[in-house]
Amino acid sequence: MPHDAGLIQELMETAHAAVDIARPETLRYFRKPGLMTANKTTDGFDPVTEGDRAAERAMRELLARKRPDDAVLGEEFPPVSGTSGLTWILDPIDGTRAYMSGAPSWGILLAVADEDGPILGIVDQPYIGERFVGGPDGAWLDGPAGRIALETRDTSDLSEAILFTTYPEVGTEEESAAFWRLAARVKLTRYGLDCYAYALLAAGQIDLVVEAGLQTYDIQGPMAVVRAAGGIVTDWQGGDASNGGRVIAAANRALHEQALALLAT
Amino acid sequence: MPHDAGLIQELMETAHAAVDIARPETLRYFRKPGLMTANKTTDGFDPVTEGDRAAERAMRELLARKRPDDAVLGEEFPPVSGTSGLTWILDPIDGTRAYMSGAPSWGILLAVADEDGPILGIVDQPYIGERFVGGPDGAWLDGPAGRIALETRDTSDLSEAILFTTYPEVGTEEESAAFWRLAARVKLTRYGLDCYAYALLAAGQIDLVVEAGLQTYDIQGPMAVVRAAGGIVTDWQGGDASNGGRVIAAANRALHEQALALLAT
Repeated sequence: MPHDAGLIQELMETAHAAVDIARPETLRYFRKPGLMTANKTTDGFDPVTEGDRAAERAMRELLARKRPDDAVLGEEFPPVSGTSGLTWILDPIDGTRAYMSGAPSWGILLAVADEDGPILGIVDQPYIGERFVGGPDGAWLDGPAGRIALETRDTSDLSEAILFTTYPEVGTEEESAAFWRLAARVKLTRYGLDCYAYALLAAGQIDLVVEAGLQTYDIQGPMAVVRAAGGIVTDWQGGDASNGGRVIAAANRALHEQALALLAT
Repeated sequence: MPHDAGLIQELMETAHAAVDIARPETLRYFRKPGLMTANKTTDGFDPVTEGDRAAERAMRELLARKRPDDAVLGEEFPPVSGTSGLTWILDPIDGTRAYMSGAPSWGILLAVADEDGPILGIVDQPYIGERFVGGPDGAWLDGPAGRIALETRDTSDLSEAILFTTYPEVGTEEESAAFWRLAARVKLTRYGLDCYAYALLAAGQIDLVVEAGLQTYDIQGPMAVVRAAGGIVTDWQGGDASNGGRVIAAANRALHEQALALLAT
């Protein structure tokens, strides 16, 4: 559904304010000593979950003030219903295992969705200081090298494509087999970037991201950024991926079709 | 062999100057459009190799002026012999595949070695702006959060350890089998970080890095940083790893012993 420019601007401003408020909360425990040893299995305190929850709480408080009629769906707390038809979708630390390892490939994910899926989204990497943004006005990165427009690339054949996924085991045995049919046909397969892989796809650096077992809050932010940069995000049958599950993101239609054919075989 | 403080200081200053001069050369093509399509298989121009060579050329010119009696071993050009007993070991872009994918886990590697191995080393990530340094005066990171002392952590049992390697296939069939004996026993295995994994180990974020098929210039810089932070770097038999091959880096002696036993079984 199209929305007027004033609303989009207000949503975008609130989205940036929400991610700004989440950043210091997510960085509070990142790379701090004892992150792994002081975990919930030993003394009940889990710093990763603490950072995650503190960040989501701060974002929800801001949204309750600025956008009280919108719904909220987040990883850490129960959903809040709304009356505006808009939903804020939050994942303050996507990529918990990267976070626990000190690797700067985790991110703050945020999307604003209507009944058709995400309208705008953000993938933010607080340690590097990179914010990937996508919406009706296009897609861009604000980062160490300034502002850069994001555009997916035109790689037209799988044999030239770079494919990313988070774990080599991918998902179920069936999902893994499908993934490996595809991986066998691409130029290069790499692992372990979580949400950051979608950001690289939007930035025209890689061509495909294929994952399984995703949640709504894992995919809507990245989906908004990739789409605004010219890419395609669907499930493995070419249908809606807004609710997660098996997801493929492709730089362009030609690659998307070639990859879907292999995932479905 | 111990060296006097004045020499160490001079070597450290020259090391920083060399990495400073390499940084802009390595960033020239990073995340630029067409990096993958304009490769040497099509029109003879390979931007990754161009960046790599330009950076190494700049470092070698600086070393020829500042340290004319030292030897130089680098990835891109023939070795230069010296008379001082010291060798500069250079890899301007370690992690070419990460570089080609836009992922900020490649690095500039530099070490100064004598006949016993590296005296000091640097792992530098120009895009994030992180420099991991190790030498006789300790190990530290200069990065987005200022200067942080590096110290490996004291995880004492494999079942609590985080293990990294670059590719899940690791190396030969035998090497892969050894790796998987180890991977089956740790808490978490992750992939794809190249030299950056050694930096995370030095920073006390992860516990083990295991790789095979390394070159001298792949390992000496990371080895110097990990050792100065309190870690251990050897080959899979516990012997010298200065010349690459099969390498294990461990946060401490207890983990090193447990991991070696599984790699050797």
